[in-house]
Amino acid sequence: MSGPGAVNRQVRLAARPRGLPGDEVWERRSEPVPEPGEGQALVELSHISLDPAMRGWMNDTRSYVPPVGLGEVMRAGAAGRVIASRDPGLPEGAYVTGMLGVQDYALTSASAVLVVDPDRAPLERWLGALGMTGLTAYFGMLDIGRPQRGDTVLISGAAGAVGSVAGQIARLCGCRVIGIAGGPEKCEWLTGELGFAAAIDYRSEDVRRALAAAAPDGIDVYFDNVGGEILEIALAALRLHARVVICGAISQYNESEVRGPANYLSLLVNRASMTGMIVFDWAQRYDEGRERLLGWLQAGELKAREHVVEGSVDDFPEALRSLFAGANTGKMVLALSR
Amino acid sequence: MSGPGAVNRQVRLAARPRGLPGDEVWERRSEPVPEPGEGQALVELSHISLDPAMRGWMNDTRSYVPPVGLGEVMRAGAAGRVIASRDPGLPEGAYVTGMLGVQDYALTSASAVLVVDPDRAPLERWLGALGMTGLTAYFGMLDIGRPQRGDTVLISGAAGAVGSVAGQIARLCGCRVIGIAGGPEKCEWLTGELGFAAAIDYRSEDVRRALAAAAPDGIDVYFDNVGGEILEIALAALRLHARVVICGAISQYNESEVRGPANYLSLLVNRASMTGMIVFDWAQRYDEGRERLLGWLQAGELKAREHVVEGSVDDFPEALRSLFAGANTGKMVLALSR
Repeated sequence: MSGPGAVNRQVRLAARPRGLPGDEVWERRSEPVPEPGEGQALVELSHISLDPAMRGWMNDTRSYVPPVGLGEVMRAGAAGRVIASRDPGLPEGAYVTGMLGVQDYALTSASAVLVVDPDRAPLERWLGALGMTGLTAYFGMLDIGRPQRGDTVLISGAAGAVGSVAGQIARLCGCRVIGIAGGPEKCEWLTGELGFAAAIDYRSEDVRRALAAAAPDGIDVYFDNVGGEILEIALAALRLHARVVICGAISQYNESEVRGPANYLSLLVNRASMTGMIVFDWAQRYDEGRERLLGWLQAGELKAREHVVEGSVDDFPEALRSLFAGANTGKMVLALSR
Repeated sequence: MSGPGAVNRQVRLAARPRGLPGDEVWERRSEPVPEPGEGQALVELSHISLDPAMRGWMNDTRSYVPPVGLGEVMRAGAAGRVIASRDPGLPEGAYVTGMLGVQDYALTSASAVLVVDPDRAPLERWLGALGMTGLTAYFGMLDIGRPQRGDTVLISGAAGAVGSVAGQIARLCGCRVIGIAGGPEKCEWLTGELGFAAAIDYRSEDVRRALAAAAPDGIDVYFDNVGGEILEIALAALRLHARVVICGAISQYNESEVRGPANYLSLLVNRASMTGMIVFDWAQRYDEGRERLLGWLQAGELKAREHVVEGSVDDFPEALRSLFAGANTGKMVLALSR
């Protein structure tokens, strides 16, 4: 329970960013910890999820969710514990995840959060491999990528929260998986621990040449988290009837002009498809996805990693910038220490 | 039968074009009319098909078919009559269509051509609405576009051989169809005769604004024959789960640098797909497609039009250029007069 005089520190969006969001777009605010009304519960947050998609939510443009309004608490997935409740569906002491925002405390209700069991997996993992990013990888790879045994599968942002899970799922489907990531440590993790057949370090290698060496006959699935030049390189390597999953475009989110793939006609030549996905469309199947991911994790067939930044909500802006700089291997989470 | 001294005039590819193919890329040649060997038949061509795809076949790049070799007779769909045969499967007098090339006479065999009945539809129509372009429209719209009753469907190159059939098929599926074409006559044909709900003249109208007026709630299917800026305008108008059929990109075929769609992330926001198609993949279902198209034609539910250029094979280069200038309404065919 929040003690008397406890405050709810928040990070609110104060201005629309151009490019990488600087400190000037945020407002730090301290408010009284709210009291739950009838049907509400109060959550004390312990972990805040950092996601590339957050950058899109900050733009004032039509998208798959409304933009975060100016003056509003920044939208974020988060995990925490129910410390007071007037919602019979959400008992005190329950651990939950949901879109609770960048703040210390949040009011919620049973229908808006997922009750999770920290004995089955640590809380940060319920935001990562068992959360939205893991589910994005699961449905994006299986339903859109449709990997077949023997396929060659390319993943960009392969050491990220989504890419690392997507690549392992393809491997579990019997595919040969190639990852693109930034830096030798990430690449070593992909091939050494996650079972990727090859890894390409886009910071030090000529990606086109390295891909030609790693996949001389081309690729059947491309799971794109980055966009830009790497998308073009992947399109140039498509095999017949290849599937391109457009999951994200982190290289483009802070650019004023998005680079479109000049060689998109590779889709025509190869009768290939390029399909955008948002995990929300599989909401009816989240339970299935989580159970399967948890089963793989418990069996040791899937490995998950979190990049945990210890701090307070005040550290959110810098942590978000470091996400775009590629600081994380696996899922980036801000753990709130009190 | 070709008389004594008859010659086979041919148009051969002499050089790789840059941009619009000028006269310098062609070689006109006259050869003796060949004699069919065992298992061969000789066809006297009457109609040569002109297709935007020909431009791609002239490039020395990996594509869905090998490039036309330098010195080879230009590849072309064509129709004609068997005038001599040593193939028991192809009797003299039969009318056929197939990839017979830009020439007066061609050797072929039963397995390489389709025997057609000029009493069911004129020969030029067997190259158009009942030929490759009609089948492209049929499978591309039905299998890739997957139009649902009540959908809003946008077609570019809508007065062309593929677009005009694709749009009518969508209309037959209960969709509201909007066509983009060049010039008032084509637009009038679309709305006045083919049952399109609206037509946008890209030569005189602001396409973005006209599309917003014609489809204020966006589009469910976009069947793209042109690429370039119009593809971007269409992507910006996608509705949730929209399907983009990449059938062609006539605006880009003569450009040295293809313009990629800068707003391809509309696929992500709208969970939409963009899929390339080549009709060859449906070869096992051509008969089904042709019978259904013929049924619609005979019932008056589908209207077909051919733009017939009368001339000789020598007129092929100029006719091809006029195709890229948009001279045709419906299918462009060169009719060989002797």
